[in-house]
Amino acid sequence: MGTDHHATVRRHWETCEARDWEGLGDTVSADVVYEMPQTRERLRGREAYVRFNREYPGDWHLNITRVVADAEGAVSWANVTVGEEHLTGIAFFTFDDEGRIATVQDFWPEPYDPPAGRAQLAERA
Amino acid sequence: MGTDHHATVRRHWETCEARDWEGLGDTVSADVVYEMPQTRERLRGREAYVRFNREYPGDWHLNITRVVADAEGAVSWANVTVGEEHLTGIAFFTFDDEGRIATVQDFWPEPYDPPAGRAQLAERA
Repeated sequence: MGTDHHATVRRHWETCEARDWEGLGDTVSADVVYEMPQTRERLRGREAYVRFNREYPGDWHLNITRVVADAEGAVSWANVTVGEEHLTGIAFFTFDDEGRIATVQDFWPEPYDPPAGRAQLAERA
Repeated sequence: MGTDHHATVRRHWETCEARDWEGLGDTVSADVVYEMPQTRERLRGREAYVRFNREYPGDWHLNITRVVADAEGAVSWANVTVGEEHLTGIAFFTFDDEGRIATVQDFWPEPYDPPAGRAQLAERA
């Protein structure tokens, strides 16, 4: 296992999308820590992390659109569908000395209406 | 101006926090494109971008907690306060050939309650 953080993040999500739970587990440290800052949830360890993903309900699929990575960490931007629902998932990663994922913190930003008073500056897609 | 994407992102937010609008403008391309995917807003050009930030209402302050950057792009994670309100701001960047910011896409994920059925896996902070 190398320390190519880009490749590790892509493999992480590819194994997840493929429901390859052993492969997914290989991308994370035995003592991986997963935090969901929006709900203040935290879970610890490879087994719990894989189980969380394995048991995540719905017909979910993810498509990675961007990965940014450097020596210290990485970030992925994914388009996720759960049935008819479209979501954006953003995950921050750090890595252990062997290049495995040591921490994951993810965010699920939702659509909202723009505040009044700036329509003269910004067009809408 | 170098092509150190880490440093450019930090300077981008430091000049913004300092209300140094000329300095902020120096960090972006003349034809920078700023997109807000949650509201589907988009604005174009250095002048509009600086004005958007200059006119953003409230006593806002930002503190950068993480920057991840590589040859293609960068991501920042900021803790933002607007008066008593605490927000998380995540911004994705790309750069032009001179190392200036060519595109910005930002996200403002909000707290929510965890769904039922996973309390056995995740503790709450």
